[in-house]
Amino acid sequence: MLEVIDHGPIRELQIAHPPVNALRPQVLATLREALEAAPGEGARAIVVSGAPGFFSAGLDVPFMLEGGQAVAVATFEELFALRTALVMSEVPIAAAITGHSPAGGAVLAICCDYRVMAEGKYKIGLNEVQVGLPVSPVLHANLRRLVGPQNAERMCVEGRLLTPETAYEIGLVDRLVALEEVVPTALEWCEKLLTAPRRAMLRTRAIARADLVELYADPDRPGPEEFIEAWSNEETQTTMRALVARLKDKG
Amino acid sequence: MLEVIDHGPIRELQIAHPPVNALRPQVLATLREALEAAPGEGARAIVVSGAPGFFSAGLDVPFMLEGGQAVAVATFEELFALRTALVMSEVPIAAAITGHSPAGGAVLAICCDYRVMAEGKYKIGLNEVQVGLPVSPVLHANLRRLVGPQNAERMCVEGRLLTPETAYEIGLVDRLVALEEVVPTALEWCEKLLTAPRRAMLRTRAIARADLVELYADPDRPGPEEFIEAWSNEETQTTMRALVARLKDKG
Amino acid sequence: MLEVIDHGPIRELQIAHPPVNALRPQVLATLREALEAAPGEGARAIVVSGAPGFFSAGLDVPFMLEGGQAVAVATFEELFALRTALVMSEVPIAAAITGHSPAGGAVLAICCDYRVMAEGKYKIGLNEVQVGLPVSPVLHANLRRLVGPQNAERMCVEGRLLTPETAYEIGLVDRLVALEEVVPTALEWCEKLLTAPRRAMLRTRAIARADLVELYADPDRPGPEEFIEAWSNEETQTTMRALVARLKDKG
Repeated sequence: MLEVIDHGPIRELQIAHPPVNALRPQVLATLREALEAAPGEGARAIVVSGAPGFFSAGLDVPFMLEGGQAVAVATFEELFALRTALVMSEVPIAAAITGHSPAGGAVLAICCDYRVMAEGKYKIGLNEVQVGLPVSPVLHANLRRLVGPQNAERMCVEGRLLTPETAYEIGLVDRLVALEEVVPTALEWCEKLLTAPRRAMLRTRAIARADLVELYADPDRPGPEEFIEAWSNEETQTTMRALVARLKDKG
Repeated sequence: MLEVIDHGPIRELQIAHPPVNALRPQVLATLREALEAAPGEGARAIVVSGAPGFFSAGLDVPFMLEGGQAVAVATFEELFALRTALVMSEVPIAAAITGHSPAGGAVLAICCDYRVMAEGKYKIGLNEVQVGLPVSPVLHANLRRLVGPQNAERMCVEGRLLTPETAYEIGLVDRLVALEEVVPTALEWCEKLLTAPRRAMLRTRAIARADLVELYADPDRPGPEEFIEAWSNEETQTTMRALVARLKDKG
Repeated sequence: MLEVIDHGPIRELQIAHPPVNALRPQVLATLREALEAAPGEGARAIVVSGAPGFFSAGLDVPFMLEGGQAVAVATFEELFALRTALVMSEVPIAAAITGHSPAGGAVLAICCDYRVMAEGKYKIGLNEVQVGLPVSPVLHANLRRLVGPQNAERMCVEGRLLTPETAYEIGLVDRLVALEEVVPTALEWCEKLLTAPRRAMLRTRAIARADLVELYADPDRPGPEEFIEAWSNEETQTTMRALVARLKDKG
């Protein structure tokens, strides 16, 4: 479910759950464990990438609906743990957004230091509200740092999926390149960071991200409970089941 | 002083105080009461609109100067209460900025969720400083959410009125359309929000606006006292009387 | 080391330490004392300018390396005191960025109310990390107000020097004009502010900058200790000595 590719001191963690990199508990846990292990194994920067066409389609809704409450709980808990691992990483992380990145896919990208996205027909956004789920207050704080409070409010309340161009304009992604250049550009960004005096770079990174780290380190930070509860809500379940039925009809 | 027009579940509240929608206590109170009553009467979203050419010219300065201290006090108190009603509204509010929107006019628009403004020769901005009044710290916080701290500081300290194009560029308004499209576009924005699962949309809206609501709900929040005091100041009174004399000469 | 030029009620303080306006303790102290004295001597606004081609090249690294620890300590302490004087100034300050403005040069500009920069081949940015120094958390807060959290993080962690065009686009500077127009444009901006009713203008300025002033007034605010310590670090000393050797080779 994950390919680990070392490029010198930069480790690429490629989400590999065909066909659309849907995020079920095992995928999330595998990525988190790899992130946590990487610095101890010599990685000085990390690239999280996806498959050509799909960075990640987000949470694995059909799997959650089939698996019942236990799978839903595990999914939300693992997503929360992975977000924390991304934000608290001791080394910089670039997201190589190799295609579509809705909902949970965008969540992962937003928790990285830097985002390179593929130009073209792909979409990115926090469309959770469209399927009956709110956006987490702490993730909303991540998003506000990137796009500002008004864009963050509009994106989340409207549940809009954005083109790469709009995402770049408002600051949701930092670079747009052709699909085949996404991973190389993310690697170059990491390489460039590694040329600076290391102690000063890591300390400056800690200062610049102190607000985020404080939010994620807060022991009173709300956990995934609200999302687990929202998932069980009839409004959400009805919306989800209709969505999955539509996807099956298409398939 | 207010036209109430229902468009299905969306209620339009049209400020109607000819010729320029100047805001005197009765206008402010009528709009506030209508806002507070709307959700209980079935409105699921609200559009606040003005007259073609003037969303609102701001506080009714000639009326305040004629009425003396009591009218000034009532005006500032009602403006504060209306701002609170706009920010704390349980349903989303779009401002349909149908023309000029200086000072108090901009204040109302800034307190809504979303702003659609007419293209053309109209002006919008917080030019309070030019007439001797500071900008309220809490309103300044609203403004910073839209345009960022540096733009907010520059706009308020310089007391600049902006073209619709500049207002759009810096994020003071969210959409620019032809005058006749302003109300329809604001209605469409509301309609679109109402298609999302309602519970999730309202919860996401609450999360995204929690910082603002916290400011407005703070019992220690500074009230209108500073503005009442600033109004009575000789510098302000002289500036205001000169302004009204110039307007009378023109008329 | 400083030219004082009065333009009516606006005082221009021109840093004059040829050839590149390198900031050593005496330069920093002279500018700070002039800033602190200006309002009492009738200045109602201030322009801080540099030499054509160099606003300031930043801290005087060769002087610090020659002078040893005592000079380094004095430099960081004076820079901290000058930043405080700029941010806490009772009158508005425009930076007239008349050329290159890396590191310490950018620091001074960032602490002013408004920035006018020369178009052309000049560079501006916080490239401290490239020479082994972190960016101060409080200065980082100044920067975030101008360019937003993500741009601030990227600028500082990457230690990038920006073109005037990029600096303008992200909000690091407020105006771009031809070199010979930099000081006149900064003066015009001050003149314009002075036309507004004074009490209201200063009160609005205080409201808009309250967040910054609170940070700088905090008695528990971290002092220059971290930078003095970082300066003594072997990584930094090696980087600095290599830098100065390269500059000598060029010269």
